Amino acid sequence: MALIVQKYGGTSVGSPERIKNVARRVAKFKAQGHQVVVAVSAMSGETNRLIALAKEIQTTPDPRELDVIVSTGEQVTIGLLAMALQAEGLQARSYTGSQVKILTDSAHTKARILSIDEQNIRADLANDYVVVVAGFQGVDEHGNITTLGRGGSDTTGVALAAALRADECQIYTDVDGVYTTDPRVVPEARRLKSITFEEMLEMASLGSKVLQIRSVEFAGKYKVKLRVLSSFLDEPGEGTLITFEENTMEQAIISGIAFNRDEAKITVIGVPDKPGIAYQILGPVSDANIDVDMIIQNVGTDGTTDFSFTVNRSEFAKAMDILKNQVQPHIGARDVVGDNKTAKVSVVGVGMRSHVGIASKMFRTLAEEGINIQMISTSEIKISVVIDEKYLELAVRVLHKAFDLDQEDA
Amino acid sequence: MALIVQKYGGTSVGSPERIKNVARRVAKFKAQGHQVVVAVSAMSGETNRLIALAKEIQTTPDPRELDVIVSTGEQVTIGLLAMALQAEGLQARSYTGSQVKILTDSAHTKARILSIDEQNIRADLANDYVVVVAGFQGVDEHGNITTLGRGGSDTTGVALAAALRADECQIYTDVDGVYTTDPRVVPEARRLKSITFEEMLEMASLGSKVLQIRSVEFAGKYKVKLRVLSSFLDEPGEGTLITFEENTMEQAIISGIAFNRDEAKITVIGVPDKPGIAYQILGPVSDANIDVDMIIQNVGTDGTTDFSFTVNRSEFAKAMDILKNQVQPHIGARDVVGDNKTAKVSVVGVGMRSHVGIASKMFRTLAEEGINIQMISTSEIKISVVIDEKYLELAVRVLHKAFDLDQEDA
Repeated sequence: MALIVQKYGGTSVGSPERIKNVARRVAKFKAQGHQVVVAVSAMSGETNRLIALAKEIQTTPDPRELDVIVSTGEQVTIGLLAMALQAEGLQARSYTGSQVKILTDSAHTKARILSIDEQNIRADLANDYVVVVAGFQGVDEHGNITTLGRGGSDTTGVALAAALRADECQIYTDVDGVYTTDPRVVPEARRLKSITFEEMLEMASLGSKVLQIRSVEFAGKYKVKLRVLSSFLDEPGEGTLITFEENTMEQAIISGIAFNRDEAKITVIGVPDKPGIAYQILGPVSDANIDVDMIIQNVGTDGTTDFSFTVNRSEFAKAMDILKNQVQPHIGARDVVGDNKTAKVSVVGVGMRSHVGIASKMFRTLAEEGINIQMISTSEIKISVVIDEKYLELAVRVLHKAFDLDQEDA
Repeated sequence: MALIVQKYGGTSVGSPERIKNVARRVAKFKAQGHQVVVAVSAMSGETNRLIALAKEIQTTPDPRELDVIVSTGEQVTIGLLAMALQAEGLQARSYTGSQVKILTDSAHTKARILSIDEQNIRADLANDYVVVVAGFQGVDEHGNITTLGRGGSDTTGVALAAALRADECQIYTDVDGVYTTDPRVVPEARRLKSITFEEMLEMASLGSKVLQIRSVEFAGKYKVKLRVLSSFLDEPGEGTLITFEENTMEQAIISGIAFNRDEAKITVIGVPDKPGIAYQILGPVSDANIDVDMIIQNVGTDGTTDFSFTVNRSEFAKAMDILKNQVQPHIGARDVVGDNKTAKVSVVGVGMRSHVGIASKMFRTLAEEGINIQMISTSEIKISVVIDEKYLELAVRVLHKAFDLDQEDA
């Protein structure tokens, strides 16, 4: 008998029929003798409907009141799923984040979980109940309703698994696991049986949007065994296990090729090379709520340096405006240039730590196809390059082949 | 400066535009220096939508889970109204029933309020906040979400006014007050400036559906000054004040004519006149969840008696079936006869206590029009008769005129 936490996203509970499907799946696990806790999202479309309603009242909705409104989406789902489980002949009880209670800080619309009181859930499990918990939401120390931000239901699932010391946290989604790269770009892409947390973090942040980054961080911190499965297959199979332990013996060198099409590159040229300059450049960008991805600064030679970074393409114009009109005159840079027709490709793998030559193999493979590398950024387990957008698919395909990702791993 | 509790129903908050109207009205009261607490219903249609969703999962939804789902309707409204108040430049904060906390018993879908913790609300009022509270809902001692049943938002408003010892509880609705009778039947019907609680109770239970009965009982018990006003007029006027004190000096003898079209009459003939017989007749009816309205039993003469009662017309067939097939053979009654083409007309007024002859005037007025009276039932402040449905409008008109209800009162 195992204690399993399952998390179902919005499309998996998008209609009464789908909610009944989820109940049938939970019933299978119960029939195998497992204890099950389920975390659910709002029915697909519901969160957007509620936000739109709020914006009809206030263009920029008050964060506290927005959380009051938006949290009702998951509250409806937990009631419906508890009923569907009862219709399957199971005992079931629903809990809002506040009822559990899932204590968070007070950062409305992007709160962080501080603790989970698992006593009620444990008592229900001991009495053979299936426990259904609203994802995405919590309550602060003053009793205010909070939400964790988009995708926060994954985090709820993992946090519940951590608090309950569950044997496994299963994230049901619309894909059947994590792939070596996007199968729409490379038909030979394979589902990985397992991937390390660190690789998953790099894959997620690089655009393989299977799991919320925060939930993966959380799972790593609390050593939760995390598995990604399909909620649309009758037999979801084994999905992809996200492992905490590194097993370098069996580990492939590279786990996957991640990419992001929506990159725009900006370079500030001739920046005075002195302390505090990075903040003077990025501070105004950050103040405008523009997310910055890669940041590169080379060592200066003539007392000045070039400073490059990438932003989401949709915010390129806004970022360029800030840099040209606020930053450049203020810091006395020579010029600001940008390119919004770029893309980022990354090879990710824990194995590269102990294998030299990964970077040179990557660069050589791209060179052989005549693909120019515009920016390079590396971490311990990934190498990212920015290239011209038109070469993106080609780059992903040749790298996938060069690193033998189409071959079944041991 | 007064402390006012205002309650707005589903149609008054039925769209973002109407919610903004409510906010503007509250702002006017604030500008006059008053403290305002607002209780709101779900947006019109929302509760029905949620119940229909639940019934897609379970034909008879689990009451605890149904409350979890349905309570989200008011939760959305409080967030939206708090935002709309902020958009009017006011400070505002929303509370669910659980956040307040409005403690109820555990009778899901028809819970009763046990107590209200008014500390947070008082603190907010002291800090110049408008407080917005979800109507219709509460929380039991175990932290389960409960609802008060349909129309329970009125009860929430009155209960808040009682707990806060508010100067007035204003119920905004789609009519501008309580009328002497339905203006659609009698164009001369007048809005009453005031009506006593007891009269209001009789008027409400007789089909003048301006206020929930329970909220009026509650107001009477806690001596809350209750006022019915229109939420659709720019200047709602003074509406109708529901008074706790009787002022017999100025009180008109009769306040109004109430009526109910959907009555069906059932008579059990030749019932053995012995103890327990009423229960043997009505027990099975009640077990089938059929509400019984008037009940009449005459003194028996030959050891048997006739026992009559009325039910809602929609339940007539079901009730007849129970009586014919279960009750009659069991108690040995001679026959069961019924008529579902009847209606009930009542004259209501505290003044009739000290005035003889009201009943005889009522009966004479009906007789002069050739309207036969089938059943009579009286209380201290009302006289009800059951008549053939086809005479209903005529009866209401002639009684309205006979008791001078079209004349302005002092």
